[in-house]
Amino acid sequence: MEASTTATATVLRVAAISGSLRRASANTGLIRAAAEICRESIPGMQIDHVDISELPLLNTDLEVDGRFPPAVEAFREKVRGADCFLFASPEYNYSISGPLKNALDWGSRPPNCWADRAAAILSASGGSGGGRSQYHIRQVGVFLDIHFINKPEVFTKAHQPPKKFDDDGNLIDPETKEQLKKMLLSLQAFALRLQGKPANSQQGN
Amino acid sequence: MEASTTATATVLRVAAISGSLRRASANTGLIRAAAEICRESIPGMQIDHVDISELPLLNTDLEVDGRFPPAVEAFREKVRGADCFLFASPEYNYSISGPLKNALDWGSRPPNCWADRAAAILSASGGSGGGRSQYHIRQVGVFLDIHFINKPEVFTKAHQPPKKFDDDGNLIDPETKEQLKKMLLSLQAFALRLQGKPANSQQGN
Amino acid sequence: MEASTTATATVLRVAAISGSLRRASANTGLIRAAAEICRESIPGMQIDHVDISELPLLNTDLEVDGRFPPAVEAFREKVRGADCFLFASPEYNYSISGPLKNALDWGSRPPNCWADRAAAILSASGGSGGGRSQYHIRQVGVFLDIHFINKPEVFTKAHQPPKKFDDDGNLIDPETKEQLKKMLLSLQAFALRLQGKPANSQQGN
Amino acid sequence: MEASTTATATVLRVAAISGSLRRASANTGLIRAAAEICRESIPGMQIDHVDISELPLLNTDLEVDGRFPPAVEAFREKVRGADCFLFASPEYNYSISGPLKNALDWGSRPPNCWADRAAAILSASGGSGGGRSQYHIRQVGVFLDIHFINKPEVFTKAHQPPKKFDDDGNLIDPETKEQLKKMLLSLQAFALRLQGKPANSQQGN
Repeated sequence: MEASTTATATVLRVAAISGSLRRASANTGLIRAAAEICRESIPGMQIDHVDISELPLLNTDLEVDGRFPPAVEAFREKVRGADCFLFASPEYNYSISGPLKNALDWGSRPPNCWADRAAAILSASGGSGGGRSQYHIRQVGVFLDIHFINKPEVFTKAHQPPKKFDDDGNLIDPETKEQLKKMLLSLQAFALRLQGKPANSQQGN
Repeated sequence: MEASTTATATVLRVAAISGSLRRASANTGLIRAAAEICRESIPGMQIDHVDISELPLLNTDLEVDGRFPPAVEAFREKVRGADCFLFASPEYNYSISGPLKNALDWGSRPPNCWADRAAAILSASGGSGGGRSQYHIRQVGVFLDIHFINKPEVFTKAHQPPKKFDDDGNLIDPETKEQLKKMLLSLQAFALRLQGKPANSQQGN
Repeated sequence: MEASTTATATVLRVAAISGSLRRASANTGLIRAAAEICRESIPGMQIDHVDISELPLLNTDLEVDGRFPPAVEAFREKVRGADCFLFASPEYNYSISGPLKNALDWGSRPPNCWADRAAAILSASGGSGGGRSQYHIRQVGVFLDIHFINKPEVFTKAHQPPKKFDDDGNLIDPETKEQLKKMLLSLQAFALRLQGKPANSQQGN
Repeated sequence: MEASTTATATVLRVAAISGSLRRASANTGLIRAAAEICRESIPGMQIDHVDISELPLLNTDLEVDGRFPPAVEAFREKVRGADCFLFASPEYNYSISGPLKNALDWGSRPPNCWADRAAAILSASGGSGGGRSQYHIRQVGVFLDIHFINKPEVFTKAHQPPKKFDDDGNLIDPETKEQLKKMLLSLQAFALRLQGKPANSQQGN
């Protein structure tokens, strides 16, 4: 399928960030699943997982002569180069995880790397599936000037049957995969709409 | 100074945490000012500044055999040993700073170190003075089982005249000091009330 | 003095408010169930359902010569006379219902009738059970100076099996009744703690 | 002026709703000022003030045979016919006013009248200018499927000098008018972008 897109077809590059640093994180698993879904069945959209585990805790004293620490510079460049964002956000204590908030903050240092891009949020979490963290991210996004899709919202109840993830955090639940795909198509449509491109420019290929 | 309280008088120990790691942070300055106010004029209350700059980004893979990394253990012990909490919370992108959220999260790992204590939040920030971060902390506190005082709320507009902090982040504004003192007395009264102690047990000293 | 509590021991009066005006509302049903639980098994606690359906939409032009409209005066007097509050809060569009917010607002007009009382929130709602509305009420409570219990939180998923309410909105699910009772005991304990009374003064009756 | 737009030029119709019902409300004054700004200097955009004072408190028992009460039907038709929305939202007790939440809720009853339109929020309020209400509206908007502009945010500190409103609630402050105009242009651009129309289609007039 990708083979059939012509050289001029735009590929939406999605920077995907997981708020959990655990090796077997279900949230990181959602990103791997999203990447696979794009490769297999969503032409014109490509997921790049951006690692945030090496970022230092935010401290603006680390900015010297307008330069950021190397790990921060590398992170910011990936954010800046993306067309849109996918946040896999666990709910930690009814809000955004510390590592994800730290990454959002580094990316916001002037000049703000997040501005005017579309984004979607998905969560794997216990309890209600992570929703409380998502509304905090949306409030952060007002300042960062991110445009979130409204629907569908994805709240994956990680600990409820049926078993949704294997022991390595790989998504194995077909229904959740279907939800993910719907979210990715909604993100693609919204990103293209914001870019002033016809929604079906990629999908007709 | 503590020496002058009698052996039987309870001293409320306040663990104070700054969400900003900058050397000249105004929020850390607010904590220093609070400590000084307690030393000088609030018998029975002592502020201990708990540093969070050495905490790793939260990753539960770092918990091995029920042990936390040394910096986390040390942090958790200070939280556990406190009678109440004072959060100096800058507003980063309309929410809690990454470093502060990271600290809140480490302290919440089972067994939760924050439970059933009184707390107050103050902020020095641009714009509206940091309020947006405070309501996110309050939501986090529902899960952590923290009891926040409602009033007074302290939002220090760091960049508005009159100049409130010197270049090292020391609070130099008398009016803000007065607000701080009122907040500390409110925190003391609420903490004692929750502990079932008469509010004036310390103030007669 | 607590030692002298006799048969005339204080009864905590709980003003209970439902955010839904439907005749067969599940939220109003939760209040009826709470009242019954108190009558049957929580000595020292009494639920009074305060109707809010006759309040006009808030408009301060209706306050004339320091007087409120009769329905508002009656409502405010019930709020003022309560020892604590129980909010049965459906989630309407991810927030507080209009009628409940309207009632909160009328009660807040100076002098604020809500101040310095304990409160609990429960919800019956679709989806995640109404949680999003509860955190908005908690933010409102900061200004109103309400002290909410943190735990347990009650989110009744009204549309999930087993059937929890009959067609008239009466609670018929034993497990939810058990949750309700735990919440009421937690509210009682917290209210007494804030009032400086021993938690078990009523429970020995 | 509208007369001079050619037959083919789209006029964006903005349904504007004030959360305050006071006759001399500053928030309603902001809507009048916005309407005037559009008439005078923003071709292609027209503000229609939608009154919400006659809506009953939401009670779905009032929906009979799929029909709403007449005042609700009339309100919903105005919402449905609009291209985008402007909310003038006072902050009542750190959240949305009861009357505004009530209106949002009536408009959301199936079929949801708000869906997939752009919107902006402005506030006149004491204290920090009403911001806390705006983030609650944004959370409501996720469910309603409203797309809010991120910038500029308008928080009019109604009680701070210079005097911004006359005794009838008319906006008399040139700086606030300038902010309003920027917000309206941003709303126009975002609405057109979402509709897939070139941003300058109106501005060339």
